[in-house]
Amino acid sequence: MSTETLLTRLRGTLGVDGVLVDPDVTAGYQRDMMPLAPYGAPLAVVLPADTAQVQEVVRACAAHGVPIVPRGAGSGLSGAANAVDGCVVLVTTRMNRILEIDPDNRLAVVEPGVINLDLRGAVEKHGLFYPPDPSSYDWCTIGGNLATNAGGLCCVKYGVTTDSVLGVQVVLADGELLKTGRRTVKGVAGYDLTKLFIGSEGTLGVITQATVALRPLPQAPGTMVAAFSSTEAAGAAVSRIVREGVVPSLMEIMDASSIEAVEAYLKTELGAGKGCAALLICQSDSGGEAAIRELTVIEQVCADVGAELAYTTYDLAEGQMLLTARRAVLTALEVYGAWLTDDVCVPRTRIAELIAGCARISAEVGLRIAVVGHAGDGNMHPTIVYDPTSGDEFARARRAFDDILAVGLALGGTVTGEHGVGKIKREWLAREIGPIGLRVHRSIKTALDPDNLFNPGSMFDLG
Amino acid sequence: MSTETLLTRLRGTLGVDGVLVDPDVTAGYQRDMMPLAPYGAPLAVVLPADTAQVQEVVRACAAHGVPIVPRGAGSGLSGAANAVDGCVVLVTTRMNRILEIDPDNRLAVVEPGVINLDLRGAVEKHGLFYPPDPSSYDWCTIGGNLATNAGGLCCVKYGVTTDSVLGVQVVLADGELLKTGRRTVKGVAGYDLTKLFIGSEGTLGVITQATVALRPLPQAPGTMVAAFSSTEAAGAAVSRIVREGVVPSLMEIMDASSIEAVEAYLKTELGAGKGCAALLICQSDSGGEAAIRELTVIEQVCADVGAELAYTTYDLAEGQMLLTARRAVLTALEVYGAWLTDDVCVPRTRIAELIAGCARISAEVGLRIAVVGHAGDGNMHPTIVYDPTSGDEFARARRAFDDILAVGLALGGTVTGEHGVGKIKREWLAREIGPIGLRVHRSIKTALDPDNLFNPGSMFDLG
Repeated sequence: MSTETLLTRLRGTLGVDGVLVDPDVTAGYQRDMMPLAPYGAPLAVVLPADTAQVQEVVRACAAHGVPIVPRGAGSGLSGAANAVDGCVVLVTTRMNRILEIDPDNRLAVVEPGVINLDLRGAVEKHGLFYPPDPSSYDWCTIGGNLATNAGGLCCVKYGVTTDSVLGVQVVLADGELLKTGRRTVKGVAGYDLTKLFIGSEGTLGVITQATVALRPLPQAPGTMVAAFSSTEAAGAAVSRIVREGVVPSLMEIMDASSIEAVEAYLKTELGAGKGCAALLICQSDSGGEAAIRELTVIEQVCADVGAELAYTTYDLAEGQMLLTARRAVLTALEVYGAWLTDDVCVPRTRIAELIAGCARISAEVGLRIAVVGHAGDGNMHPTIVYDPTSGDEFARARRAFDDILAVGLALGGTVTGEHGVGKIKREWLAREIGPIGLRVHRSIKTALDPDNLFNPGSMFDLG
Repeated sequence: MSTETLLTRLRGTLGVDGVLVDPDVTAGYQRDMMPLAPYGAPLAVVLPADTAQVQEVVRACAAHGVPIVPRGAGSGLSGAANAVDGCVVLVTTRMNRILEIDPDNRLAVVEPGVINLDLRGAVEKHGLFYPPDPSSYDWCTIGGNLATNAGGLCCVKYGVTTDSVLGVQVVLADGELLKTGRRTVKGVAGYDLTKLFIGSEGTLGVITQATVALRPLPQAPGTMVAAFSSTEAAGAAVSRIVREGVVPSLMEIMDASSIEAVEAYLKTELGAGKGCAALLICQSDSGGEAAIRELTVIEQVCADVGAELAYTTYDLAEGQMLLTARRAVLTALEVYGAWLTDDVCVPRTRIAELIAGCARISAEVGLRIAVVGHAGDGNMHPTIVYDPTSGDEFARARRAFDDILAVGLALGGTVTGEHGVGKIKREWLAREIGPIGLRVHRSIKTALDPDNLFNPGSMFDLG
């Protein structure tokens, strides 16, 4: 069966405008946001509009032995959605309907192409809250969030994507539609297939619908910022805050390099002052007296461990300004060159050691490494800045990227807290989970996708 | 290879006192607390003391083709831990060490035989909280909780067991040890195998260790109780409380039959008065002003929908007395006969309809059905009372049990909210998840346990 036969069949299902083959056009769907990841040239990019069309695409590709790479908006940072040569890239962005919002049962039913921010906005009108908030929340899709089990700034209090999902619909390798989970708050009927598909990075099937759990909209947050003259003190503050039993709704850390970049980019002073090694930004969305109690404890802890400054505000605009600064780090670093952001998660007590390790690696490779991250859950994003026109700098950046992962693992952490394995951390996954873990991964993949149709070569190879 | 060869090998590994074969003794390990479930006669009951011994038991049984039924305390309500003829029952109660409590990272590492209450008590000394609280929390084991993804009264605010687990160690069918998950708060390195094993009811492996996430110890709870003259009004109150954006730490419902039984058993008045059709008991553990705000909203909602009485107390002993009454329902029902407790979970908006359905079924079968349950998450336990000496009453109880499941499914619910499928709801699982879901279950089971060594015939058959 020829390629042309497949394309004709796909066009018959999706219409001519649902099957893109012009290389100038398909190039825009070849890769995600991770510069390290390899990518290939797809045979075609398809844009199904509903589950039935996804089923037809899967059946057609299966019949032709053509691999499928599922893709949302392409905001990923692991190359998981990158094309492989000769594949069909299945883009879910046309499936962007919010099918239902049920306030009395606090749930929503959505298609995978819905943009995270659009869902947030739609449920907010009902006084409800969809917590997962990856940095790309204004353009990433729910489908991609599910496939990568995305995190964000909310996780310290509200968990990651999998904690907000009740069930999914998935098109399997033979084109059949699997419905997992339920609409109820609880349920233990059978294996937890929902959470098996969440975070499987498109290697087990194509998610075409999700039922997500919503929460009551939190109160407007109060914000505390503290400046430390050593990262050890900032790390100690994080441990102490956890120890004190406070659960902030956000707890972010920025190192000196991040602060410097942001101050230059936003042309503002963050109040960190000279000699500031780390800023800690915490929020409480508990409202009223509870928020005051939480932020008072946090501010006191920061002062106790030697913060140069610890300041709490209940002014929304001022709090927002601090968050904007935190969110601007990656953009700000572009002034110095291209960036390569890592994603390690360590026990919360080991954050200062991770930052120290990054400083050592920075000196070794001779490149700027800015550390910014979700201190509340130990998920750090050391970001390496390099000159993209220099092959040598890129090679050194790649070395630093790997060295940081080794430090994270040695500190009892994981090689990916929220970005995923994709096509850049396969060896690291194998190192973290070991041969038995890898064997179990392979046996599950083979059980569900015996012909390796979905996203081949992502996450792990079949050995 | 003979049975005697296997027993000799097991005794060599576990010692003579670790291998029970006297039928009078092994009878105590044949079944759990669910009277409907079939059970067989085990070849032996083994009591390994550590992971290495579990590995040896699994290797020995695999070599002899003898199935293994893993078991904790036997508090289950689905027959999942019931012996099958000629099996080895692997009891984890000797593996009862709390290996580590790490307050700064809010986690504990435990063996499966640790009793839920013992873990709760141990972490409480560090100001920490392990939320899952099934009714049998004073004698059930963590291993059983993990295998069934146990719930409890805490779930409306704190989720079920899977929400508190970071990683597990599992002995696989070939005796190899799989380590899943991590010690960090977040992590997306590979498939979420942790949550695949949680709730798999001993069909995929033997969990020999777990790393659980802890929370700060909540504040002492305030308690509200409301009495309603119709279950519809009580159901409306639940929906409205959810709609108001309040998340109580507990929200339990008792119908008239439950109230009557408890009042007779405890020789007390619950203040429900004559004509009371339902009691709603809610708690807030948010502390201070926040608890007052939450309980005030809840009390007002109850009054608004027509509660005969709505009363809030911050007196701990009084609140505890109400909880004791709620927890006494099953024991109280024993005055009238044996009981058979069902476990359906419906959308929170459908609770009143479920209770009405149970009343209809009660009239049809001519047996008392008391409905008690976790209203906050829609997980209801309609409990059928029958004369255990009457085969006819047992048959009618069984019919009512199934009819209640049908009502639950028809209301958009699930056939098991927290007790599991085990050996009593296999047909119902198949009905709920459909042929594609069943096929995926079978393929995962076959991939991980190709010779059907673990708990054969539980949850589903291999078709």
